[in-house]
Amino acid sequence: MTDLRTLDAGALRALRQDLLARYDAFRARGLTLDMTRGKPSPEQLDLSLPMFANAETQYLSESGIDCRNYGGLDGLPEAKRLFAEYLGVATDEVIVGGASSLAMMYETIVRAVIFGVPGGAGPWGQRETKFLCPCPGYDRHFAICEELGIGMVPIALYDDGPDMDAIEDLVARDSAIVGIWCVPKYSNPTGTVYSDAVVERLARMETAAPDFRIFWDNSYAVHSFEGEPAPLRNLLEACVAAGHPERALIYASTAKITFAGAGVSAMAASRVNVTWSLRHMGIQTIGPDKLNQLRHVQFLRDMPTILAHMARHAAIMKPKFDAVQTVLGQELGGKGIAHWTNPAGGYFVSLDTMDGCATEVIRIAAEAGVRLTPAGSTFPYRRDPRDRNIRIAPSFPAQKEVEMAMELLAVCILLVSIDRLLAQA
Amino acid sequence: MTDLRTLDAGALRALRQDLLARYDAFRARGLTLDMTRGKPSPEQLDLSLPMFANAETQYLSESGIDCRNYGGLDGLPEAKRLFAEYLGVATDEVIVGGASSLAMMYETIVRAVIFGVPGGAGPWGQRETKFLCPCPGYDRHFAICEELGIGMVPIALYDDGPDMDAIEDLVARDSAIVGIWCVPKYSNPTGTVYSDAVVERLARMETAAPDFRIFWDNSYAVHSFEGEPAPLRNLLEACVAAGHPERALIYASTAKITFAGAGVSAMAASRVNVTWSLRHMGIQTIGPDKLNQLRHVQFLRDMPTILAHMARHAAIMKPKFDAVQTVLGQELGGKGIAHWTNPAGGYFVSLDTMDGCATEVIRIAAEAGVRLTPAGSTFPYRRDPRDRNIRIAPSFPAQKEVEMAMELLAVCILLVSIDRLLAQA
Repeated sequence: MTDLRTLDAGALRALRQDLLARYDAFRARGLTLDMTRGKPSPEQLDLSLPMFANAETQYLSESGIDCRNYGGLDGLPEAKRLFAEYLGVATDEVIVGGASSLAMMYETIVRAVIFGVPGGAGPWGQRETKFLCPCPGYDRHFAICEELGIGMVPIALYDDGPDMDAIEDLVARDSAIVGIWCVPKYSNPTGTVYSDAVVERLARMETAAPDFRIFWDNSYAVHSFEGEPAPLRNLLEACVAAGHPERALIYASTAKITFAGAGVSAMAASRVNVTWSLRHMGIQTIGPDKLNQLRHVQFLRDMPTILAHMARHAAIMKPKFDAVQTVLGQELGGKGIAHWTNPAGGYFVSLDTMDGCATEVIRIAAEAGVRLTPAGSTFPYRRDPRDRNIRIAPSFPAQKEVEMAMELLAVCILLVSIDRLLAQA
Repeated sequence: MTDLRTLDAGALRALRQDLLARYDAFRARGLTLDMTRGKPSPEQLDLSLPMFANAETQYLSESGIDCRNYGGLDGLPEAKRLFAEYLGVATDEVIVGGASSLAMMYETIVRAVIFGVPGGAGPWGQRETKFLCPCPGYDRHFAICEELGIGMVPIALYDDGPDMDAIEDLVARDSAIVGIWCVPKYSNPTGTVYSDAVVERLARMETAAPDFRIFWDNSYAVHSFEGEPAPLRNLLEACVAAGHPERALIYASTAKITFAGAGVSAMAASRVNVTWSLRHMGIQTIGPDKLNQLRHVQFLRDMPTILAHMARHAAIMKPKFDAVQTVLGQELGGKGIAHWTNPAGGYFVSLDTMDGCATEVIRIAAEAGVRLTPAGSTFPYRRDPRDRNIRIAPSFPAQKEVEMAMELLAVCILLVSIDRLLAQA
């Protein structure tokens, strides 16, 4: 538990020898652990298999819609009702789509780029546009902006949400800022839950852009590791109350409730935004897979059923996240070379090394068989200005593997940190 | 069987009285038949329900991929193999996607609008662009162009495909023409099958636009009413042979093989186009619903199994299409006021009235309880220059209903035609 920064070169070198031996031992075991993505484990996916028990005869909706056939652009009525309950909005403020909420976000932004959004100053593609990007954040959000030529402005992420002082200042001055990416609950990768005050300020702030939108990726709304999910102020309500009803674009999916590649996604927004979305969606497609929606509704039923189901996920997830904390605490606690988050839900732990160490840590961990999300991924343009953030995704590997991978990661952090300290000495 | 155009006003008026009586009798029955879209009937959808027999335990691909989890942007390997066989291309020339091939086409064009296509002169959205539109054609194709600001040039559709003389002349002269919509087999709505010569000319022709693309919507590749599907020259092969490998963009789906709203779609193209598509798709989504792909592959298996399955569809479809021909022949044959196609497969029959009658026929048919696709739908901008084309979609209603609807349609055509002839007299 000694702060490594207080040790002299000799002590550091001695430590380094022990660590190298541990590292080589790991390497000799020929591990191949993939911790690059937040994937549910097979045990979690098993929880939803009963959804298919009656699939062969399960094709009529409660009002008699044949879910095998065309139609229903906005989703099955009972699926809209379930997601309305899930997101705390009215049924006609919901669109239920296909398997990917990421695709729904991408497609919303593509529509904004080509056509512009309601109340806006024309297509986003015809002027300079920028998004605010609280970071560390979700690499796939940033990739969408990069692909579509939308500039990105990094924003610090605090324990209660993004740096609202900075945000209010920027959006008031710069009409090119048309959006912000938010994962408001159990944020990827930090586990942050936005406070009511932050949500209120996001809803109320005055923006120079008349068509400013909050992309509210509420992917982990019910994904606590223990007990009730953290409360989160309803963004759509807050935006309506603040006189900015079109500002909120809310996304959710069952990717991490049922099946990661084969769940159901949904979007919630004002009726104006919903109408605008459906007008364009109706050109793109005839409608979503209603059979999958029907199976999901009959399996997930209502919020109490969903919460009971999520408790079963939590029973699998919590020991893994506990192991991350335990191993990191034992190996790195008090050593002054890393700090990390301790989320109450979600899929990730965010760890910061000393400045300039993350790339090297991830490289040598990979050489010993543990693949982590590439350094920089949690920042716009994959550039972590301090090269220190590492996203830990412990959900997929088995419990033992998580423990092993965390120990190896800690050894790698120690090794790289010591090298850094020795170089600085 | 008398040509109505040879009758005098008195004879026409007498006929009109009889027809009005028949029309009023229909109207009194309070029918509500929807023939607006090419939807499979419930009996057809039942054919694929056995796909779900093992859904609860069916989640591992043949190579052990867990189809419940993330990954596999280009589709499940065995699904790619099946569609490669279906479309006559190599496995790495195929992307297997979600439920909607229309969405795949829309998204391809959106990518072209925003980013441009390989070998192209930049984003389509930054210059004047036009598509050639053989018509009568598919309204949803035309709607995509209209939404995205791509001009449409109507092209006559003959028995063996579109007017190639006109096409060759236009594409050679006008570099704004970057695409053509084709439904090459059992075309919507005429049932046309493109001849080998037409396919060859499409592949070989010189185009002023370096990035000209053929959007080859092969939705009805195996959808014959009896016996083997009609042969169709392989467009990708023809384009490769002609030195235009990037020209072919081929789409297909199981919407009318398994489930109309919940099938699997695929795209085939050169490796250059596939790589380009995947690069952008990888930003939009993590991957398609592989569980649905797996179920489809295990159910449809190979081409002999697909053809045997389609024979069961044909057994349901043929009597309905026979009824359309029988009733139209009996009621309108030799009367000189309408002609119609007699497709060997697909989902539609195309009927032309005398000029200027289609809108009124569809209006009075709806008043008597039979809804047809709105007049003009089969032309760009919903404008049928001669107001004569009616799309007949007999797949969804029951056999008796098809017969009734066709009789009513014939009565409506006769009534409106007689009024027209009387007005001209």
